[in-house]
Amino acid sequence: MRCDVVAIGTELLLGQVIDTNSAHIGERLAANGIDSLLQIKVGDNLSRMISVLGQRIEQAEAVIVCGGLGPTHDDITREAIAAVMGAKLVEDEQVAETILHMFAARGRRMPMNNLRQAQVPVGATVIPQTRGTAPGLICPVGDSVIYAVPGVPHEMREMLERAILPDLRRRAGVDSVIVSRVIRTWGDSESGLGERLAGIIDELDEPGRPTLAFLASGWEGLKIRLTTRAATSGEGLAELDVWERRIVERIGSIVFGYDDDTMESVVIEMMRRRGLTLALAESVTGGLVAARLTEVPGVSDVLRGAVVSYATDVKVGLLDVPAGPVVSEQAATAMADHVRRLLGADVGLSLTGVAGPDRQDDEPPGTLWVGLAFGDSVEAHLVRLPGDRTQMRQFSVITALDALRHRLVTRTSPVTPRAIAER
Amino acid sequence: MRCDVVAIGTELLLGQVIDTNSAHIGERLAANGIDSLLQIKVGDNLSRMISVLGQRIEQAEAVIVCGGLGPTHDDITREAIAAVMGAKLVEDEQVAETILHMFAARGRRMPMNNLRQAQVPVGATVIPQTRGTAPGLICPVGDSVIYAVPGVPHEMREMLERAILPDLRRRAGVDSVIVSRVIRTWGDSESGLGERLAGIIDELDEPGRPTLAFLASGWEGLKIRLTTRAATSGEGLAELDVWERRIVERIGSIVFGYDDDTMESVVIEMMRRRGLTLALAESVTGGLVAARLTEVPGVSDVLRGAVVSYATDVKVGLLDVPAGPVVSEQAATAMADHVRRLLGADVGLSLTGVAGPDRQDDEPPGTLWVGLAFGDSVEAHLVRLPGDRTQMRQFSVITALDALRHRLVTRTSPVTPRAIAER
Repeated sequence: MRCDVVAIGTELLLGQVIDTNSAHIGERLAANGIDSLLQIKVGDNLSRMISVLGQRIEQAEAVIVCGGLGPTHDDITREAIAAVMGAKLVEDEQVAETILHMFAARGRRMPMNNLRQAQVPVGATVIPQTRGTAPGLICPVGDSVIYAVPGVPHEMREMLERAILPDLRRRAGVDSVIVSRVIRTWGDSESGLGERLAGIIDELDEPGRPTLAFLASGWEGLKIRLTTRAATSGEGLAELDVWERRIVERIGSIVFGYDDDTMESVVIEMMRRRGLTLALAESVTGGLVAARLTEVPGVSDVLRGAVVSYATDVKVGLLDVPAGPVVSEQAATAMADHVRRLLGADVGLSLTGVAGPDRQDDEPPGTLWVGLAFGDSVEAHLVRLPGDRTQMRQFSVITALDALRHRLVTRTSPVTPRAIAER
Repeated sequence: MRCDVVAIGTELLLGQVIDTNSAHIGERLAANGIDSLLQIKVGDNLSRMISVLGQRIEQAEAVIVCGGLGPTHDDITREAIAAVMGAKLVEDEQVAETILHMFAARGRRMPMNNLRQAQVPVGATVIPQTRGTAPGLICPVGDSVIYAVPGVPHEMREMLERAILPDLRRRAGVDSVIVSRVIRTWGDSESGLGERLAGIIDELDEPGRPTLAFLASGWEGLKIRLTTRAATSGEGLAELDVWERRIVERIGSIVFGYDDDTMESVVIEMMRRRGLTLALAESVTGGLVAARLTEVPGVSDVLRGAVVSYATDVKVGLLDVPAGPVVSEQAATAMADHVRRLLGADVGLSLTGVAGPDRQDDEPPGTLWVGLAFGDSVEAHLVRLPGDRTQMRQFSVITALDALRHRLVTRTSPVTPRAIAER
């Protein structure tokens, strides 16, 4: 089954707003086994909208139209669809009432143009609105169908999952469900993981097995996504469990989480469960590790604070870093050890390195020393990272947090992320 | 003149990559007075590419095709364009030689498939490649034209400016140039600026005058863009100078920079020129101010470091914050004053506030105290910011840096960003 996507809005053509909706819809359609072969942006112009919709519905069994459902005079998606259906627009009383209630509930007077949003082509079914004031529409055109959803991303996404994907699956005769799981890793490259998982990947290539995809995601790590189709979601998840277990057995130490886990949420949670507090000493990352950790709600149970020691004599004066090069093992261990004393934390984590573009202390850009003061041990690891100044700093954040994670899990040295440097 | 855009790549339809190229091209076309009425994503499929390109070139005088010019077997834009032109592909010796040289210069062996990139439809003109290995193409189709550019954004952008926009302007008989200037502001809302600039905006509405547009850009501030068309760029810039002066006269104190300036680059440059050094004490922003400042190359002349005092007793112990609520004027002034002593800096800047979702010290989310220790004066300002946790923290960064900027410019209190709260 084929479902094309039309994004409505002159602001999209002018580049004032980036169309991210059609990419999201494309991803969700693919996950549900439905092809999306053309995705088009068109402005708020009735004749062009009618022409584009008419062409799409000739070539595809379904079309999703995003945007142009608001209350103002340039929101004309309803009119365009009605023209393609050859149907009249009539006011749907129930939709009108819902809109009136929404305004009343917020204690606001409803501008009358909001009732435009209650106009529905004869023969169309309403997708009730739960977040914004505009409902969605399911509009049959012969044996095909046009779905209309608002352009506001969270309204669109909710209607897509609740109404459109189930309807499309039904039409496509798909009575199965698609389930997926993301295994989140740090410490090896795509090609490195490909080699280590070679046998498993071959097995998964056989028809009817889950699919496996790698997705390099910068400082979010490298994701492995398993996707399968099954009669029920329980059955699908059970199948994914089996493959996940085999994968994790093979590459276990570099797996830091699943699905929506992030490196920072995982590390904070591990520290919290062990009742440990953390202090940071940041040089090359200039506060980026602290900034990222403090995005996690509830981090205040764990994080005591950070010292960003950008100037050398701040390292020396405040963190007792010994004289000599500051991008070094000695500096990293001194920073980690002294920051935990200074801030009264159980664990000290430090980063000193060269973001570039110039060398420093005779070290090339990409050099990172991560220091870790944990219990009686104070140690540091050297890592070579790729990328420009911004990327190097971002990779440093996840690399340092991963070093702490390894220490918490295994109490051994972290795996050197050898293969990051391949990228 | 009309120029549509076609973005090539199955990864765009699957949502693995967001198509930002067509938005950028649309913006640049509009700035050059050229309409872009349809923008289409299509996968790496020869017959669909030929059908889409054929249709576009019937409806528009020009089409820009992005992507599919690489060396691998699924890069088939050249083949599709040749089919639409009814022309053969032949190897262009000069392009082939350039590609060979590029590999040789990097000391790398050239995989033979790279010569695919030297294939040029008969009748097309090459846009020489300066960044990647793939050249662009200018392909006449009757009186119309198809431009092909690589999908790599910086390669595409460079060819667009160097070759495509000049060619399009020539074809459209436009011998004028478009120049624009961005005035960057912080401290008032779009509607507030609209009111304050009302008379000027009315004057600019007259035909032949520059256009003015507002662009709210989060923690990059609110941009005012002036654009005009003129015979020469010198003439255009002179005209913009006049209007810019009038605007800045009216709203001067909230203008922090122009064009590519950022709040952090402006503040760092002002500090450097005055020979001043800076220390930061961050609570609510958790290191975000330091992280953002350290993105600016050369910041080490100015920034000595930062203390992220997340736990209350770190504020008390290390920064001598007095007992009592830590989201308060007293805490902000103590933090600013003590961090500059602790880190040996001329100026101390502090932030303490409530990012939410919960209240703290009986203050609602959005509360921000900015402390500033500068010369003999130590003072703090209260600001109420909108947004969720992430937005509040980001607005806090630009608000605090703007407070420092005001102090550097005027030695008076910063304008309270009253209107941010309207958003």
